[in-house]
Amino acid sequence: MYVVSYKERELKDVEMDGVQKVTVRWLIGKQTGARTYAMRLFEIAPGGIIPLHNHEEEHEIFVLNGKAKLLGNIEGIAKKDDIVYVPSNELHGYDNTEGKEVFKFICVIPLIEKENA
Amino acid sequence: MYVVSYKERELKDVEMDGVQKVTVRWLIGKQTGARTYAMRLFEIAPGGIIPLHNHEEEHEIFVLNGKAKLLGNIEGIAKKDDIVYVPSNELHGYDNTEGKEVFKFICVIPLIEKENA
Repeated sequence: MYVVSYKERELKDVEMDGVQKVTVRWLIGKQTGARTYAMRLFEIAPGGIIPLHNHEEEHEIFVLNGKAKLLGNIEGIAKKDDIVYVPSNELHGYDNTEGKEVFKFICVIPLIEKENA
Repeated sequence: MYVVSYKERELKDVEMDGVQKVTVRWLIGKQTGARTYAMRLFEIAPGGIIPLHNHEEEHEIFVLNGKAKLLGNIEGIAKKDDIVYVPSNELHGYDNTEGKEVFKFICVIPLIEKENA
C-alpha cells in the first residue's frame, strides 16, 4: 500500500489533434501498481477543449471541479460530482472554451498496451 | 455516453465485520456500463472505521474529502487529494474514529465476480 498526493505525479501537456490547454497526470499507472486499469487526472483550463475523438478504451469518469460541455451522442454539461461513462469506441469530447473554472476530472481506463502508462 | 450526479446512485450501508458508519454508492458497476472494473464512492462518517481486511481485488483510490488513518503495512494518513493504492490480497483499512469530517473517497476495483456490482 502507498499514499501520495496527486500533485506529486508528473504534470504533462496532452498532445493530441485539436486539444487545447489540457494537462494530465497518471495517478496510478503501470509503473505505480496498475494491473488492468489506470487512474488519471485531467485538467482543462478555461478556454480549453478535448475535441471529439474515439478509441477502444472505455472511460469511467468522476468530475472533481468546474464544468464542461459534453461532445458526443448527448447534449449536456458535466459538472462537479458528476459521473460520466463513455463506452468503448464511442465519439466523445469535453469543451471548456466558454468556462471560467478549470474542468478537473478523474478518468479510469483499461490498460490496452498503452504507452507511457 | 451518460452523465449523472453521484448523488443519484443508491446509498447503501456497508455491512462487513467491524465496519462502522460507512456507506457506499456503486457509481459505475456492471449494470451501468462497467466491463472489467467498477467505480464506487465510500463515505466514512466521523467515528467510523473499515477495519483491517483483505481480498483479491486491488484498490485504486482517490480521496475527495477529510482524512483517515491508514491501517496496514504503513503508518500514515490519507487526506483530500491523495491517491492510495492497495495491492491484491494486502491487509488494509481506514480509521476515521478520531476524525471530525467525513472521509470520502473514490475506490476502483476489478470486477471479479462481485455480487451486486
